[in-house]
Formats: sequence, C-alpha cells, structure tokens
Amino acid sequence: MGGTPVFTGLSAFPLTPLDDDRLDEHAYTRLIGRLASSGVDSIGVLGSTGSYAYLTRAERSRAAALAVQHAGGTPVIAGIGALRARHVLEHADDVQQAGVAAVLLAPVSYQPLSDDEVYHLYERVTAHLSVPLVVYDNPRTTGFTFTDDLYAAVAKLPGVASVKVPPLPADPAIARDRVAALRGLLPAGVTIGVSGDQVAAVSLRAGCDAWYSVIAGTLPDLALTITRAGSPRQARAASDRLRPLFELFAAYGSLRVVATIAAHLGLTAAGCLPSPLRPLDTAARAAVLQALAVIDATPLPRE
Amino acid sequence: MGGTPVFTGLSAFPLTPLDDDRLDEHAYTRLIGRLASSGVDSIGVLGSTGSYAYLTRAERSRAAALAVQHAGGTPVIAGIGALRARHVLEHADDVQQAGVAAVLLAPVSYQPLSDDEVYHLYERVTAHLSVPLVVYDNPRTTGFTFTDDLYAAVAKLPGVASVKVPPLPADPAIARDRVAALRGLLPAGVTIGVSGDQVAAVSLRAGCDAWYSVIAGTLPDLALTITRAGSPRQARAASDRLRPLFELFAAYGSLRVVATIAAHLGLTAAGCLPSPLRPLDTAARAAVLQALAVIDATPLPRE
Repeated sequence: MGGTPVFTGLSAFPLTPLDDDRLDEHAYTRLIGRLASSGVDSIGVLGSTGSYAYLTRAERSRAAALAVQHAGGTPVIAGIGALRARHVLEHADDVQQAGVAAVLLAPVSYQPLSDDEVYHLYERVTAHLSVPLVVYDNPRTTGFTFTDDLYAAVAKLPGVASVKVPPLPADPAIARDRVAALRGLLPAGVTIGVSGDQVAAVSLRAGCDAWYSVIAGTLPDLALTITRAGSPRQARAASDRLRPLFELFAAYGSLRVVATIAAHLGLTAAGCLPSPLRPLDTAARAAVLQALAVIDATPLPRE
Repeated sequence: MGGTPVFTGLSAFPLTPLDDDRLDEHAYTRLIGRLASSGVDSIGVLGSTGSYAYLTRAERSRAAALAVQHAGGTPVIAGIGALRARHVLEHADDVQQAGVAAVLLAPVSYQPLSDDEVYHLYERVTAHLSVPLVVYDNPRTTGFTFTDDLYAAVAKLPGVASVKVPPLPADPAIARDRVAALRGLLPAGVTIGVSGDQVAAVSLRAGCDAWYSVIAGTLPDLALTITRAGSPRQARAASDRLRPLFELFAAYGSLRVVATIAAHLGLTAAGCLPSPLRPLDTAARAAVLQALAVIDATPLPRE
C-alpha cells in the first residue's frame, strides 16, 4: 500500500438521503456519524451512491459542509462532477470551502466526450483546485471509458492523488496483472482504488491501495471485515459471505439495494432516492432482507 | 402522414450558442429567425443539439422565451429533460410559461434507469403538463434503450403526441417494416419522427411522419431539399449529396460539426459549445469545410 493515507484503505460512500425530495439532513448526518465511529479510513460523500448528479448546487454544498462537521476528523472526499465544466468548478469551490480533504471527479457525459475533452476538463479543474483530486472512472454511469493512455496523462496532472477504477477481473492472477499494468502507467504516489464491492477482496489482494466502497457507506462493519481481515483467506471468506448481496447489486443496482437496506435499518426514509429513481418493489425488497438474514447467519471463519 | 401538424414534417433543432460560456442571445435569436424564415414545420429548441442538458434553469427558461418570441408563429418544441424528475417539472413549467407548443422529454440517466422508472417519469410529467409531449429516445446520450413494450405504454399516456426514435436501418425494406411495427404499437394520432439525418430520406419514405433534424437547425435549406423533394428519387439524391457531412457527423458527433459550420458561417462564436465540449481541431474543421464545398459543387438532379 503506497500513497498518502487519505487515498488508501477503506473509503465509505454514504447515501445522500432525501425525504419528500428534500435533503434529509438528520438522516444524512447520522449516516456520516456512523461511518466516523466505524473506523473507515475516509468518507466519500456525493459519490454515485451519494446521488451527486441529481442534486442542486445548494444541496451539494450543504451536504459537503454537514459531512465535514460530522465526520469527527475522518477525511472527507466529495464528488464534484457535473455535465458542464463551469458547474464542476463551482462545486469544487463549494466543497473546498466546506473543508473537504479531497475531491472526486468523473467525466459525466451527455454528448459522448472525446479523450481530448476529458483530458482538458481534468487539466482545467486541477489547475483550479487547492486539494487533491481522485480521478473517477465509472463507465456505467458516465458512458465514458478511459483508455490507459488517458489514465497516464490525467494522473500526471498536479494534485491527482488516486484513480478510482472500475471493477477488476475476479480472477486473482488477471487482477494482479492489471494492477501491475496500472502501476506502470501511473506516477509513483498516485494510489489505485477499486470500485465494485464484489471484487474488493481480490483487488486489495492484487495490490490495490484503496477500496471505494458502496456497501461501507451503509454497512461499514461488513466492509471492515474484508479490509481488516487477518489473512487473505479470511478476507476472501468475509467477501464470499456477502455474495447474496452482491448478486442483488448486479440485478438492481447497488444504489437501490443500499437505499433499501438503509430504510430497513431505520436510517433513512423509504423513498430516499431522487425521483425518477424508485425504491425496490416488494419482491426485490424481500430478496434484500433475505440476503441480509443469510449473511447474519453465516459465521466468519476463525482468524 | 398522420397526426397534428406540429408533429409532422421537418422539425429543425438549432444550437443554443454560448459565448464565453454565457448564452449568446444575439446569435441564438438570429438562428431562430433564420429557421422561421426558412419554412421548416417546427423548431425544436433545447434538444440535444441545443445543449439542454448542460444549461441552467435560468438559461433554459430564457432560451425558450426567446425562441417563441423570434419564431414568427412557427411552433416551438422545447426539451425539458433533466436527471431529476423535480427539475423536469420545473423546466416544463418554465417553457410552458414561455409559450411553447410542445415539450420533448428524454429519460436522461446517470444511474441506469429501469423501464418502470422511465414509465413513471413520463406518467408524472404528462399528468403535470398542459401542452403535448414528444417522447425522445436517444440511447447514445441517455444510455437508456426503450423496449417496444415501453414505447407502447408511454405513448398511451395523455398528451403524448409523437415519438422521436433513433436512426432507422438504412435498408428501405427493413425501415418500412420497422415503421409498420412501430405504427402497430402506438395509438392512432401519435406520430413517428426519426432522428439521424443520414437516414431521414429513407425514413420518411418508409412512412415516418416527421424528421427531428440536426442539420435543419443550422442549414435548413439543405434539409428542405430532402423533405420538399418532388419524388422519392429526388429526395434520395438530395440526401446522398449530404453524405460527406453525415460521415463527419459519425466521426465527430453531429453537434460539434454543426457548431463548426455555424461558426464558419458567422452565425455563432467559434467556441459556442458548453465546456468540456470542445470545438473541432484544425484538421477536422478543414474536413467540415471541404464537405460543405463538395455539397455546394454537387448539383441536385432536375425534378
């Protein structure tokens, strides 16, 4: 594990819960407080799980400020993505003002972007920033796919601290090769963080420095059983135990599943996602609760 | 050709030009005025070509109002899409207040949407509207693909007047079969409009009622040579003549190409697109000008 501490270990991405389509500040600050107490290494607010793309400037600014206030010293990373560069810079100003430790930026697209356009976006934003930036590659939500050349070019920009890459292959040897290849592309000190909770254990074992985690935002203890496991075998077992949940992530989207769990735990209102996103229907909700019950009933192996 | 006149014939989609990242009202009203004079059947403002997804509420509201003021009675259709349903409804209120004849709504996505979520979005919006709605299916920009079942369900909602479908197959027989299949799905009176300028001639010949056109927004006369052609042969020739331009649309995106043309004609500033979208580089720009020269030098066959 290399790089600065903010960009290594377990980064937990909480929901930004709404209630009646307004920011639910009570539920949100409670989620942040739980994460701070849990011992995660950083809190990634206003990520995809935090619905950043749907929220207004005022909502995002407020959410960043509340996160820093309730994080109890845990570093906060805030998403600043938007379709228009001007708005990205506005969000950067706002969250820096709120006191975040770093920002996260995905090339959000409506018109498909060229590599050149994405490079210039990162160039412009990093020149504007005074905190480090995490490059966020999420083709499923942005429609944009980074090439390795673009990773290398963007990662050289001043202030780039980490790259959040899409799920690595589940095969350990292939994942290791991919991390080694990424390591060769990126400047020393730029950490590699993986998304895709289902491959977190294999990715950390393969050499990733960080796990940018959806599940940790709502159920941090389950994620910590993977990152704090005493052995690779233990980490794999802790990950395998969560497979019923990961299958539901694949079927319904991780956001809808964690929103269902958060509501079930009484942490948020039932309809905490921004419309047109909808809560899971009764059958899917039952499957989520069943998965949680299976996980609860599955013991972890002894260390 | 069936349906109400607003949703048939040639609908021209102008740019919403910026200058130094602010709405260029002078250039915009001039574009609208040119379209009104050209004799197109409707003007589709704040479409994908009109950069709606990048603009603020204030910019969109202003653009809709200016369009109605300068359209000289030509019906104006305005895009109201946004990631969040609440914002879609706000845009609907604004453009209705501005006096548009109809609205256009695509299921803009960040988190991939389910069919159910998209259906409920259209249900909520149509219940809110007092003008007709055009269902806008553009998988390339939204990441969402309509199924035929969803077309059928959404088109039954009150106030749905037209469906703007992605490019049809270029093969005339296959296009005709597809239009017939669509006709079977949609209630009588809901028109079928095609996007994809390169297949407009074949699509109109195949039975589409309308052409929602990018090129018509900037070069209406070239589009009118296709829609007003005296015979299918003439329409095909008028379309074939534009092939050099259509190839550049495919290579660089139609938006960047028409922005280049508009700047070349002195209609807009050179950097009229919202950053991170960038003007074409020198080589691509030269290719666009060359294509225009080839078109100018290619005579249309006699009627």
